[in-house]
Amino acid sequence: MSLPAVPTVPADLLRRQIAAILRGWGMPADQAAVTAGVLIDADLAGIDSHGAALLPLYDEFRRGGKIELAPTVEVVRDFGATAVIDGGGGLGAVPASRAIDLAVEKSRTFGVGAVAVRNAAHFGAAGIHARRAAERGAIGIATSAVFRPAIVPTFGAEPRLGTNPLAFAAPAGRNRPFLLDMATSTAAIGKLKLAARAGAPLPEGWAVDARGRPETGAERALADKRLTPLGGTPELGGHKGYGLATMVEILSTTLAGATFAPLRSADAPRHDVGHFLMAIQPEAFREPGAFEADLDDLLDALRATPPADPARPVLVAGDPEHAARERRARDGIPLPPVLADALCRMAEAAGAPVLLAVPAG
Amino acid sequence: MSLPAVPTVPADLLRRQIAAILRGWGMPADQAAVTAGVLIDADLAGIDSHGAALLPLYDEFRRGGKIELAPTVEVVRDFGATAVIDGGGGLGAVPASRAIDLAVEKSRTFGVGAVAVRNAAHFGAAGIHARRAAERGAIGIATSAVFRPAIVPTFGAEPRLGTNPLAFAAPAGRNRPFLLDMATSTAAIGKLKLAARAGAPLPEGWAVDARGRPETGAERALADKRLTPLGGTPELGGHKGYGLATMVEILSTTLAGATFAPLRSADAPRHDVGHFLMAIQPEAFREPGAFEADLDDLLDALRATPPADPARPVLVAGDPEHAARERRARDGIPLPPVLADALCRMAEAAGAPVLLAVPAG
Repeated sequence: MSLPAVPTVPADLLRRQIAAILRGWGMPADQAAVTAGVLIDADLAGIDSHGAALLPLYDEFRRGGKIELAPTVEVVRDFGATAVIDGGGGLGAVPASRAIDLAVEKSRTFGVGAVAVRNAAHFGAAGIHARRAAERGAIGIATSAVFRPAIVPTFGAEPRLGTNPLAFAAPAGRNRPFLLDMATSTAAIGKLKLAARAGAPLPEGWAVDARGRPETGAERALADKRLTPLGGTPELGGHKGYGLATMVEILSTTLAGATFAPLRSADAPRHDVGHFLMAIQPEAFREPGAFEADLDDLLDALRATPPADPARPVLVAGDPEHAARERRARDGIPLPPVLADALCRMAEAAGAPVLLAVPAG
Repeated sequence: MSLPAVPTVPADLLRRQIAAILRGWGMPADQAAVTAGVLIDADLAGIDSHGAALLPLYDEFRRGGKIELAPTVEVVRDFGATAVIDGGGGLGAVPASRAIDLAVEKSRTFGVGAVAVRNAAHFGAAGIHARRAAERGAIGIATSAVFRPAIVPTFGAEPRLGTNPLAFAAPAGRNRPFLLDMATSTAAIGKLKLAARAGAPLPEGWAVDARGRPETGAERALADKRLTPLGGTPELGGHKGYGLATMVEILSTTLAGATFAPLRSADAPRHDVGHFLMAIQPEAFREPGAFEADLDDLLDALRATPPADPARPVLVAGDPEHAARERRARDGIPLPPVLADALCRMAEAAGAPVLLAVPAG
């Protein structure tokens, strides 16, 4: 959804501004380039909550001393088709990018590769990492734990799991990759923020209060962070979303040896969030090209489903992101003046060049 | 939920009765034993829809000539940590059991193993196959496509995907394994059958009519098979359930080279359903015992979540199944007289010994 009233900036300019700020904070140039790239990829795909808008959050982490800005990212375990990467206490974009690349490489040798990341922080949008595998011809899977609990377990009164995202990308032939990128909560935090900003009430089913009753106040829901797992109520399958969020937590945290948020001590120096990245090589299973051709047919058949409302055709996961990417690569990335202003001030404070135009007024 | 009014039979007796019927149909003894074991495991776990109650459906497949009863099940591709198994046109329990065992074996060598099954039919409950890996010390993942479409894509009017199950099992130490076993629809077909049998209306959100409006008539919903994906409406995240069902379809069907149901020709001789089985070895990622100990702490922390209603404690996925297993191993498996009768008649018709008591009246 492009918002025509919001001024746009060219993706490359925004990327350079973000990288400059990260370098100003002390991040080595190569790591700043990778991190800025992951954020801009999300902005291009229309995932506004996980692009440049993350910089103020990362600045908060930085000012709180919670992230290492020049981390040593290294493979600390390697076992055939699997590996473990230590993120050195820094942001997750760098170790996650390295992990999915290593998983793809391993999948070429073994058919499948799985790499866990520990001792990291926020890795950006999960879908960006999964898509990276699909761009290299492999099925990609990316999951991450999230620093702050927000999903309330079924029958519970308090949040215990992050909005733990799960992304899955698969390469097609004439189609763009299938790309599922979802929080395991009913609604992502970003949607609550949008509602709060608009002063709109939340739909019943997104959040609950301490007694498990629907919470429709966006500001309150955002402050209390008691989101429902995908499905919402037990009757509508909320226990499945709770199970999926736990599955993501086990893959991302327990397998990597990272810290489960509710068990983190209040004075822990770092987030120690974990990620899980996997790649599966279609050619290990099928003749070359057969998987991509069959996936084309499957995606086309799904899009050809008769619609309930003729004005609203059936899509497949990834379609909105691919459309946004095409549009924004051409027209630029919408950048709300308040965010442009924040970026300019962060650049100044970091002693970095201010590349964006400071908004008037 | 044990239903005290329903007579129970010892698990072993029911297992032998099922195996005898399968042998009577012409299934080799070893395959009949594995298939009966998969069904009884589901009955023991309280998953009544996927135990002995499947025999009448399998009989229907058999009478329709849709399944091979003495299939050749073989590994047709082997690529390091991955393999493809051809199910020979038979039921899926045998190739899926072999696939998860092979995946576990590969995970011991490579850290991870992934095996796809093509040319098979219904494989029983996904959770049984995932749990098999956890019993051998590995994380297990099991997915399957389903012969008949039942999930309506978001914005669609007709079903295009099966209730495509996803199961994930992880071994703990002092705890029983974490075990998620879910259909990617809001409600499983079994729940609709229960409602239809009870003459009860469905909750709004489980099924829709051809115009996308809620369908609450259980009989109609069961006949039309227009189930919502997990999440239900787009507002409540139904596009995520649709995406998950598609992910399961891609892993189970496209990767294996099986047939996507909407593209199957009406006179196809076999179901050609596909499955996907994966195992991840915790010791490839962590020191021995560390994963299991951390998972114990995670599961305990989730169960310790303050409950919204003190009478209803917070559970983790697998708790109800483990409790049922303990109870039913001790007290027997509840077998409704109508099912006992059907099994006895199937045994007679197959020229197999009738081991169950024929219900009176």
